[in-house]
Amino acid sequence: MNGTVRDGEVVVGDDARQRFYDSRGYGRPLEADRLALAPVEAAHLLFRGDLDAVDGQAFEAFLSAHAGSGLGVRFLVYKDLRDRGFYLSPAREGWVEDPNDVDFVVYPRGKGPEDGDVAHRVRAIGERASVDTDGLAGTVLAVVDEESDLSYFEAETFEPTGGSDYEPEPATGELLDDRVVVSDPPPDLHERGFYGRPLATRDGDRAGALHLSLLEAGYLAAEGALGLVGGSVERIVARGREVEGERFDRRLRAYRTLRDRGAAPKTGFKFGADFRVYESVESVSELGHAEYLVRVLPAGHTFSPRDLALDVRLAHGVRKRMVFARDTESTTNEGAGGLDWLAVSRLTP
Amino acid sequence: MNGTVRDGEVVVGDDARQRFYDSRGYGRPLEADRLALAPVEAAHLLFRGDLDAVDGQAFEAFLSAHAGSGLGVRFLVYKDLRDRGFYLSPAREGWVEDPNDVDFVVYPRGKGPEDGDVAHRVRAIGERASVDTDGLAGTVLAVVDEESDLSYFEAETFEPTGGSDYEPEPATGELLDDRVVVSDPPPDLHERGFYGRPLATRDGDRAGALHLSLLEAGYLAAEGALGLVGGSVERIVARGREVEGERFDRRLRAYRTLRDRGAAPKTGFKFGADFRVYESVESVSELGHAEYLVRVLPAGHTFSPRDLALDVRLAHGVRKRMVFARDTESTTNEGAGGLDWLAVSRLTP
Repeated sequence: MNGTVRDGEVVVGDDARQRFYDSRGYGRPLEADRLALAPVEAAHLLFRGDLDAVDGQAFEAFLSAHAGSGLGVRFLVYKDLRDRGFYLSPAREGWVEDPNDVDFVVYPRGKGPEDGDVAHRVRAIGERASVDTDGLAGTVLAVVDEESDLSYFEAETFEPTGGSDYEPEPATGELLDDRVVVSDPPPDLHERGFYGRPLATRDGDRAGALHLSLLEAGYLAAEGALGLVGGSVERIVARGREVEGERFDRRLRAYRTLRDRGAAPKTGFKFGADFRVYESVESVSELGHAEYLVRVLPAGHTFSPRDLALDVRLAHGVRKRMVFARDTESTTNEGAGGLDWLAVSRLTP
Repeated sequence: MNGTVRDGEVVVGDDARQRFYDSRGYGRPLEADRLALAPVEAAHLLFRGDLDAVDGQAFEAFLSAHAGSGLGVRFLVYKDLRDRGFYLSPAREGWVEDPNDVDFVVYPRGKGPEDGDVAHRVRAIGERASVDTDGLAGTVLAVVDEESDLSYFEAETFEPTGGSDYEPEPATGELLDDRVVVSDPPPDLHERGFYGRPLATRDGDRAGALHLSLLEAGYLAAEGALGLVGGSVERIVARGREVEGERFDRRLRAYRTLRDRGAAPKTGFKFGADFRVYESVESVSELGHAEYLVRVLPAGHTFSPRDLALDVRLAHGVRKRMVFARDTESTTNEGAGGLDWLAVSRLTP
């Protein structure tokens, strides 16, 4: 069977509608039993030997003729999803309901374009593309790496929540380089609030002092729960900006949102992240595992797929979710601290 | 007991030499049984209550007086190593044999400054410092994170080796976007050489074609083992530079070094790295696990400790070593492909 390119689609006649659409979910039916195929569908049918040629081009020649259009990457994703047993439609205007932000609409296994259900909305990219976070929530990112292997990442909106109800009692600290030392902290500040780290770590050490990070100190100061020896609390935020620049403000906003919602964020340094987050802390001595990791991103950030793979793989390996808090630089999102929250996880479709 | 600051050291008299040096390895003996302490040692003795004051300053005041000098960070590392049962000396000129590149010389457990053995050479930094890779090999990086917790990273020189002896037979490919398609590859190119990825992944697919990455293709072309349909092989490297810039040249040099030494590098995308490396491949059907991950770094690269923590943690989680190949931009290192190789691992001292 042969096809012909017309207006960016491949048109096939004969029994194409019955063979390809009715029984296997390829294409969009035209009048007179003809079928319109998207180039990626035509490529797959050429690869499978179900189509012989399109305007005289066999599989290799057809892909070559489309070099630079991204068809190579879309073909590999399309083929992989077909190999996994899915029917899927190219997200073209007039083909599917909401074609924005994605390349394919994938139907649940055993279902097709006529059934009305959608399993995944998939964006297909090469590993060298840069990924805008806008419109990413609710989609699956299919990344073709340099060796033509595939990784899938599912992005979902995320709402931080928590169950901690500790109200910090007032304390006084001293700014020392990039931390704040509280010599005589309220006993529950660490044990129930999970603020700071005790300096004394073994018997015989002089007990008591707590080291607060600049973020912890900045938050507690804004809550009216921390005063500073010999200076106003504004010095904490000023010091944070000195050592981290704007990143400090972003991270402080993320920290504040998490605390305000009853979660306990602690540094994610050992995981290469900004925070690890405990959704509920009753007491530090009965601490469970942190549920997720947070990386805070600047406004306008675009992901390198390789960096995303690194974060998500690490989080998966330590059995935590990977969450990104993106600065929105907008005043319309104050309830979330001016941040968009996005959870990304590995997916095996 | 009290001390006095003199020339950047804290001098103590009385029985200080016997109490602190002879029995616990603090300081450097002076004449007349006096002892010179580095500020970090004095801080630790103040913290422990073994010293009462230095020029009238107790522990907190002494640290405050040294704000901005990095003493806070060094104190936390010094204290942690002491807590772990080590004796250690500040790496000061005249105190230890080779004080360059590090802050502390740590003795094996049960040994001290007089015994001549060294367990670790330790550099103490805050997580916001940037780490020059020069002089890093052979040292331990002790990173104090924003919450005053510690992570240790051991850096060692690394020599890539391998046991594969496959000599690629000539093949012909076609450049398609950012990969090369070999329609009719020599049968062993993938199975024994572990080059490329077969396009056919299930029964019924038309067999044969192999996708090569631009790196694989660039290497094979330079070896005289790959020709290009309708063009010279220089187009492969030119395409690589188009899509990756200088990074492509660096990565190709690392790839070439690994292959030339008999190892088989494949993409490290799923681990967020440049390569995963198999030291020996007999055949792909009997493939073991990759032994290490490689990230290729530009000349002059400095590490952010948090990024380092991320890479090393991920590698540890998948039971591989983390190796960095740093571009040296020098002609004196041609045997290693103009790259310095550095393995970094987590350490619990």
